[in-house]
Amino acid sequence: MPRARLRDLGIVTGALPPGQWNAITDVPGVRVGYTTLIRDEPHVVRTGVTAIWPRGPELWSDAVFAGIHAFNGNGEMTGWAWIAEQGLLASPICITNTHSVGVVRDAVCALAVRDKVKMPWLLPVVAETYDGWLSDAASFPVTADHAIAALDAAASGPVAEGNIGGGTGMICHEFKGGTGTASRIVATAGESFTVGALVQANYGARELLRVDGVPVGREISTEAVPSHRDVPRDAGSIIAILATDAPILPIQCQRLARRATTGLAWVGGVGFNGSGDIFLAFATGNHVRQGEAISALRMLSPDAMNPLFQAAAEATEEAILNALTAAETMTGYAGHTAHALPLDRLAEVMHRYRP
Amino acid sequence: MPRARLRDLGIVTGALPPGQWNAITDVPGVRVGYTTLIRDEPHVVRTGVTAIWPRGPELWSDAVFAGIHAFNGNGEMTGWAWIAEQGLLASPICITNTHSVGVVRDAVCALAVRDKVKMPWLLPVVAETYDGWLSDAASFPVTADHAIAALDAAASGPVAEGNIGGGTGMICHEFKGGTGTASRIVATAGESFTVGALVQANYGARELLRVDGVPVGREISTEAVPSHRDVPRDAGSIIAILATDAPILPIQCQRLARRATTGLAWVGGVGFNGSGDIFLAFATGNHVRQGEAISALRMLSPDAMNPLFQAAAEATEEAILNALTAAETMTGYAGHTAHALPLDRLAEVMHRYRP
Amino acid sequence: MPRARLRDLGIVTGALPPGQWNAITDVPGVRVGYTTLIRDEPHVVRTGVTAIWPRGPELWSDAVFAGIHAFNGNGEMTGWAWIAEQGLLASPICITNTHSVGVVRDAVCALAVRDKVKMPWLLPVVAETYDGWLSDAASFPVTADHAIAALDAAASGPVAEGNIGGGTGMICHEFKGGTGTASRIVATAGESFTVGALVQANYGARELLRVDGVPVGREISTEAVPSHRDVPRDAGSIIAILATDAPILPIQCQRLARRATTGLAWVGGVGFNGSGDIFLAFATGNHVRQGEAISALRMLSPDAMNPLFQAAAEATEEAILNALTAAETMTGYAGHTAHALPLDRLAEVMHRYRP
Amino acid sequence: MPRARLRDLGIVTGALPPGQWNAITDVPGVRVGYTTLIRDEPHVVRTGVTAIWPRGPELWSDAVFAGIHAFNGNGEMTGWAWIAEQGLLASPICITNTHSVGVVRDAVCALAVRDKVKMPWLLPVVAETYDGWLSDAASFPVTADHAIAALDAAASGPVAEGNIGGGTGMICHEFKGGTGTASRIVATAGESFTVGALVQANYGARELLRVDGVPVGREISTEAVPSHRDVPRDAGSIIAILATDAPILPIQCQRLARRATTGLAWVGGVGFNGSGDIFLAFATGNHVRQGEAISALRMLSPDAMNPLFQAAAEATEEAILNALTAAETMTGYAGHTAHALPLDRLAEVMHRYRP
Repeated sequence: MPRARLRDLGIVTGALPPGQWNAITDVPGVRVGYTTLIRDEPHVVRTGVTAIWPRGPELWSDAVFAGIHAFNGNGEMTGWAWIAEQGLLASPICITNTHSVGVVRDAVCALAVRDKVKMPWLLPVVAETYDGWLSDAASFPVTADHAIAALDAAASGPVAEGNIGGGTGMICHEFKGGTGTASRIVATAGESFTVGALVQANYGARELLRVDGVPVGREISTEAVPSHRDVPRDAGSIIAILATDAPILPIQCQRLARRATTGLAWVGGVGFNGSGDIFLAFATGNHVRQGEAISALRMLSPDAMNPLFQAAAEATEEAILNALTAAETMTGYAGHTAHALPLDRLAEVMHRYRP
Repeated sequence: MPRARLRDLGIVTGALPPGQWNAITDVPGVRVGYTTLIRDEPHVVRTGVTAIWPRGPELWSDAVFAGIHAFNGNGEMTGWAWIAEQGLLASPICITNTHSVGVVRDAVCALAVRDKVKMPWLLPVVAETYDGWLSDAASFPVTADHAIAALDAAASGPVAEGNIGGGTGMICHEFKGGTGTASRIVATAGESFTVGALVQANYGARELLRVDGVPVGREISTEAVPSHRDVPRDAGSIIAILATDAPILPIQCQRLARRATTGLAWVGGVGFNGSGDIFLAFATGNHVRQGEAISALRMLSPDAMNPLFQAAAEATEEAILNALTAAETMTGYAGHTAHALPLDRLAEVMHRYRP
Repeated sequence: MPRARLRDLGIVTGALPPGQWNAITDVPGVRVGYTTLIRDEPHVVRTGVTAIWPRGPELWSDAVFAGIHAFNGNGEMTGWAWIAEQGLLASPICITNTHSVGVVRDAVCALAVRDKVKMPWLLPVVAETYDGWLSDAASFPVTADHAIAALDAAASGPVAEGNIGGGTGMICHEFKGGTGTASRIVATAGESFTVGALVQANYGARELLRVDGVPVGREISTEAVPSHRDVPRDAGSIIAILATDAPILPIQCQRLARRATTGLAWVGGVGFNGSGDIFLAFATGNHVRQGEAISALRMLSPDAMNPLFQAAAEATEEAILNALTAAETMTGYAGHTAHALPLDRLAEVMHRYRP
Repeated sequence: MPRARLRDLGIVTGALPPGQWNAITDVPGVRVGYTTLIRDEPHVVRTGVTAIWPRGPELWSDAVFAGIHAFNGNGEMTGWAWIAEQGLLASPICITNTHSVGVVRDAVCALAVRDKVKMPWLLPVVAETYDGWLSDAASFPVTADHAIAALDAAASGPVAEGNIGGGTGMICHEFKGGTGTASRIVATAGESFTVGALVQANYGARELLRVDGVPVGREISTEAVPSHRDVPRDAGSIIAILATDAPILPIQCQRLARRATTGLAWVGGVGFNGSGDIFLAFATGNHVRQGEAISALRMLSPDAMNPLFQAAAEATEEAILNALTAAETMTGYAGHTAHALPLDRLAEVMHRYRP
């Protein structure tokens, strides 16, 4: 059975409708790019870089608002202090493996230098999850060029999922994990807005995995589909990036980011100790332009936020599940194999519980 | 069908075993007391006070550690600043209705004066949820004596649930809500610890209610069981108090508190805008005694926290469901009626989805 | 020598010019009111309530933005969770003594009921500092009527200082403390804005007191002017309320609040363990009106914030010093006397260090 | 007049006594190392790396407690999320220039690989301030080897100050800035503890500079000593690392970190918008050893924290002033010259104000 997106399997989670591509790129202006490194020489490498541009290149001088929440902060997201302080994001976001956060972070600075961006200094946002079970992390395979390639490759439209970009070597609920995305359209305050999510999913215990409430993880034994047993069960992390075109303020972005916790919980994530479950939400509905003394903004009423909250939870949930249904079985470092969630078995279990 | 606890209905959520009473009082030393006010004259009142003592009266000079998390802070929990700063809790916790936070808070000070507690000042912890749909909140019915009575009545052992104490007038997922409790026993670090939860559940949308993943809310239409339609669907809140006897530090209590979010999500709470979803976790496993210059502590390894995290999520989930299955249909202020979750219908839906 | 404001003594701190009244009321629309309780029967009481309205009564449906910072959170400020979550303030602020936070908090709810405010629930902001050395705190002397009287008395114009309102029984740097206020005018972003501060100053060690950098505290020995020796030297707190008419967002209000720390440090406050050093900043430059689905806002550029930051520090510094120079020697509970900062001695020391 | 430490000039700030070296290394086990890059070819470079080891190499498996505070978060400190979550620090701290955070961060991972540290993943703490006025930041001059050299060079004993390590190209209060350190000995809880500070000082306006309350900055005009006029006056940052051997918990480390704000204020820092004023405090008084299920700890009573708070403020203040008195005039990138604080002028002003 070929890999697929969750909805292509006839499984619908959540109540709100997805956008055109059911992807974070449904938020106008958002672009995603990847560099994927899969090679066996000189080191066995299964890693990469995911790049997300909240806007086009005008982003450098036309910031979006942003907010962060760490459900469990055993991970890294550079740029944290700046976003907590200012709520502004004026550079692209990257996600990669744990040992490569630094090189990717400096690469964003180098890109700004290359493109003659008029900012004397930069505080780039780069997050990570750990892929050392499938990839030789100690070989430090990611270079600045890899990061810049992902940034340069960013495009709108459908977004590839599974073993791609920063998500290449991920493991999720003891199945092969990776990159996933989804979106929701909401009507509120008399307007229509989009909420999109992109996750790098690398967390979780098999027995806690649920799909639309169905205990799928418990129904697929490790005899049937092996787990990666020699890693402590809490190793791993999930990074979620939420995007919206709603006109919300930094403090409201923080609130939106917090709702990724809900979507994560619905799939079965409880924030294990070793997990870096860090969520960033940005909002393109306002513009804060460099050199502007006073910016004119719109603010969505707090009372009108509920559909966005539900959308954030639903998009996160489906993005994780898309990562699981898209990712293919992978053999990597030290001969380790991470097995994909078997889609026929998934369909069978769902059918049994949803008669 | 008489009201019951969830497990008495044959429905088991979560994987970990509950304690003796499946209640927050399974944590040794924790005591719970109530004052319940149900009267129609001179005002229609459906309210009360819930009191939780983390230890016996020695608490005043033998603090426990504590930490708070607001998943959605549209509510009140006094004492917040102090717990965020010090991570110490040396006074009992009360939960009441929104308009009565103040009187209950000062009553804790008055109790300390009455009992000749040797603390010059106090920063009591009092939280609230809003019961103005069933109770005439503007009549300010709670007095200091009511609060002190709940504090004095606190006891160990089984804990009453549903329409009782601060939970008397609550509504949850558009059914009658209230007070609920549950507990879990965990083995970690070579020892056995208990995690208990007590919630005052007053939040949520019908269509999001799930029991063990089953979409119970969607299966019980408002034609079958009416909702309280004239209140904006996001009015309400949930307060969760988590207790453990594990020897964890303040920063670890914050982490534990954050896991109530997971349990809440499993039942269907997404943190609507108007909801005060505030969680406090305390840990009795250490003693910080007044006048002690240096305290000897034990700290559970972060690596050993996972079972506690799962327990916190599971106990919160089941405590909410216990509030729903225990609470009885109530008619109150302005002739409003909040309908109980019909247990026969619940059983039927669960059976259909869990063949 | 009669009590005076700092500038009336020829002492100027800071570089920015003050507003018309050198008071928080220089921010248009801000009103301050007091109830002061000084009586010896049936209990020796030296306490009161300070009320601050960020706008006129339209505040209930026309919120200002706000943000909080606790430099040392050993104190109480109700409403914290809501402001941290939403950054909105739609009710007046009160400051009183520690044991009366509750009654004053509920009184704000009662005022809203009295005035038929169309908000189903309220999360009032009430802060405190401890006056139990001069006042019989255990007599719980403040009533709801006292709080409502302060709220009803609020007015624009010059603001009384020293032994008044919530500041009546305060002690600061081991001199008589109390209520103080100051303001600054700043030019930024091509416009002129006002920053005002009001403090209830009840903290600090004598030897750390500085006026414009001059070590005044070290120069006035406790032989010359007695201290209140039987209280641990860190008992006490300072509440600072900052106001501005600049169009800043909630996250920017948090930043402004944090700068009260700087002003406090300049006077000699280091945030002793027992001190509740809690600061709230609100900004009237935007309007968030009830029922408005999307609000049109202006946002001051982060780059234009520096003058506001300096103004916040300077106004806080001078407000504390005004509390000290205005407060008169007071004898109260248990025959305790708190001695005023001697103005002739202050002048002499300043002259010696600023030749 | 040769450069000197503040105390060598006869200027004493604060009341508490310094340790043996008046340096962060007075805290037993703390080691500091530098790599300094000063060269004109192929690029004009004035930068470096500062490395701080909280303990010896056993640190990798014997964590210290830590806490962070951002007074103004316009800067970077990687590892933030992990320390906020766990309060543990098990790797060395580095400080460098803004564009080199990444390479230094990954170098710490590489060091752990080199030294066969048994941690599968790492979240190193690397902070920065911007030196692009004196150094060609866009040439990305720092390499992993430079970082590792600083880490390998770390030693106990006296600590070099001024134009060294990460502080090489810094500017502070419009004079040449750099690296500075100081310490204090405190007696509390019947024991003696040390608090040390190390700062990388790169912030501030000339007119706000104060030394022991004396307005030194206002007394040294830019005609007398030129400023670096073409940089916006708020460019810059200060990183402060506080160390103590007191047995304090993570939440207490956060409190200690917050007191760097006070020391910074005393020198004249108000947290300008563009400044990354980020403070980390660690405490070696407890050991959390890898593989230990439950750790035995000691906790200093909150009531005993005051001397540590004052020490943190004083050590930060003097560390900044030591950076200023040690740093020498430097000419660098684009022919820019940053002028040192003239020590003879400093002495003259101090003498005038402290007769």
